[in-house]
Amino acid sequence: MSTASPLPLAPRGTHAEVELGTLLQPKFGPDGLIPCITVDHVSNEVLMFAHMNAEALAQTVRRGRAVYWSRSRKELWEKGQESGNVQIVKDLFVDCDQDVILLKVENVGGVACHNGYKSCFYRRLAAPAPAPAPAGSAVSGSPADSGPPPLQLVFAAERVIDPAKLYAKKT
Amino acid sequence: MSTASPLPLAPRGTHAEVELGTLLQPKFGPDGLIPCITVDHVSNEVLMFAHMNAEALAQTVRRGRAVYWSRSRKELWEKGQESGNVQIVKDLFVDCDQDVILLKVENVGGVACHNGYKSCFYRRLAAPAPAPAPAGSAVSGSPADSGPPPLQLVFAAERVIDPAKLYAKKT
Repeated sequence: MSTASPLPLAPRGTHAEVELGTLLQPKFGPDGLIPCITVDHVSNEVLMFAHMNAEALAQTVRRGRAVYWSRSRKELWEKGQESGNVQIVKDLFVDCDQDVILLKVENVGGVACHNGYKSCFYRRLAAPAPAPAPAGSAVSGSPADSGPPPLQLVFAAERVIDPAKLYAKKT
Repeated sequence: MSTASPLPLAPRGTHAEVELGTLLQPKFGPDGLIPCITVDHVSNEVLMFAHMNAEALAQTVRRGRAVYWSRSRKELWEKGQESGNVQIVKDLFVDCDQDVILLKVENVGGVACHNGYKSCFYRRLAAPAPAPAPAGSAVSGSPADSGPPPLQLVFAAERVIDPAKLYAKKT
């Protein structure tokens, strides 16, 4: 992947300049990374969460394709490079203190998650956790010596594609 | 703020159990925190990004109100405690590897940002960055010795309330 020239970024300004000014002054953490939330540009559905370093942000802005930094692989990660499901950047936002990026994208193929779902957020908490039982009370099916059952998730989305097929596309 | 009893959480399982199972097994980082994206439960608009420790997550689940961990103040932070603009939790999702939380909330008062905006993401990048000029070319208004102008943001939302009024509400 070619290297993008660094972005022309103003250095971090005062608190007021960062929060209410009109210069992009992103804050990268001590690890050189800034978190990025990626959403569908039409529905606003959150698709995924990842990180960018300065080079990933520069490539994203220059090329109009989402490029992240893979913390596990320790390398630039152009989303969709293997699967073909690239993310076309429609808009880029920053939060108030400019330490988080929000990308609005068109996700080609409609699959952002490596598990074959549209979004990585395909499971939700099953139900509110039950209130702790008053001391000494008997709770049916939940003996005092084993404690309450662990919290459960339920699947809130259907798989779009079998992951095996997702990554076999470009072979 | 009262202390919630710890959540009954299953310990982290295998890769497949974490990614495709039905047990909540959140991964807190070395700092004891898990990132949290908070969206409007109707529009899906991203409102803010924050962190939770185990106690904040437990309070959020138990009480149905968004409670975060303030990294700057190093304390539990019940959203809206000062402003009255609490976040009523409608749904809680985890991502594929369960190291990010997604809250869907009703944000009372319609203001999630301390600067008085509905969302913390009220500014977007003004325009795609111009391609770097070819070496030796003359670029109008951008002399070679000063480089391209810094990237600009534009405000994409109107303020809902003057922050001074936001925090004066409960005095």
